[in-house]
Amino acid sequence: MFSMRPIGYVKSAYSQTREIPKGLGAQHEAEGSLDVLPEFEPGLKDIEGFSHLIVIWVFDRAAGWELVGVPPTDDRPHGVFATRSPRRPNPIGLTVVELIAREGTMLRVRGVDMLDGTPILDIKPYLSNVPPERLRRGWLAEAEARAAGGKS
Amino acid sequence: MFSMRPIGYVKSAYSQTREIPKGLGAQHEAEGSLDVLPEFEPGLKDIEGFSHLIVIWVFDRAAGWELVGVPPTDDRPHGVFATRSPRRPNPIGLTVVELIAREGTMLRVRGVDMLDGTPILDIKPYLSNVPPERLRRGWLAEAEARAAGGKS
Repeated sequence: MFSMRPIGYVKSAYSQTREIPKGLGAQHEAEGSLDVLPEFEPGLKDIEGFSHLIVIWVFDRAAGWELVGVPPTDDRPHGVFATRSPRRPNPIGLTVVELIAREGTMLRVRGVDMLDGTPILDIKPYLSNVPPERLRRGWLAEAEARAAGGKS
Repeated sequence: MFSMRPIGYVKSAYSQTREIPKGLGAQHEAEGSLDVLPEFEPGLKDIEGFSHLIVIWVFDRAAGWELVGVPPTDDRPHGVFATRSPRRPNPIGLTVVELIAREGTMLRVRGVDMLDGTPILDIKPYLSNVPPERLRRGWLAEAEARAAGGKS
């Protein structure tokens, strides 16, 4: 077992899960902030040079987990490791946000899909993309194609 | 505090940190596998449709952490949250790998930069890129430019 502790908390307009856009075509343009605990401030040195950050956080309000489930983006069941479901063996969430500005220990960001008060475990710079011509998106691409075609 | 437990382990050709390519222009094309524990096998359903996976893992052999350090890609110090340093407040690593094949609970992957036996906390599908025209890479781009220009 590994013990992890918050390095900060998310400030977000979402206080309930149902307020967060979900499903096919959901856009995450909401602004919010990553409020890093003062003791970790030196760790933010030079972060303002990066346009995008990877935030690793805890689904602290998810109850339990299931190995197979139906995601909001499809009407068919998929394995939890093939989805972004909050109900995971380790309740770890990951969001790529755009860094708007740094104000001391507060990082103002765009693309928040976390609840207000969500504990943050780590922040990393986003460095590179997967070559688009090599990216395949499995059942999600199939669900999008079915939705676009109006049939299941 | 949050407790996390391994859902599997990395199989890799690297048994020591110094064998892993580091620094500017390091390529991670090594093949290896993500060996998921049998109890979590149902969670892999439909994962084979995705070309790339995000692996969240533990730097289990990193000793301690520091908030500011000099990364192998530069000769200047940067904050830990602006680097991929293993010496982090929570020793969480993240690697995007290409999925070559699934064989039961074993995912054969390319792009391994973890040590053999590294504990895996989570696997998620890689779904989308940051728009390339909006991606800025801060001190890393500056270090690359200096290296290319042959001056510091």
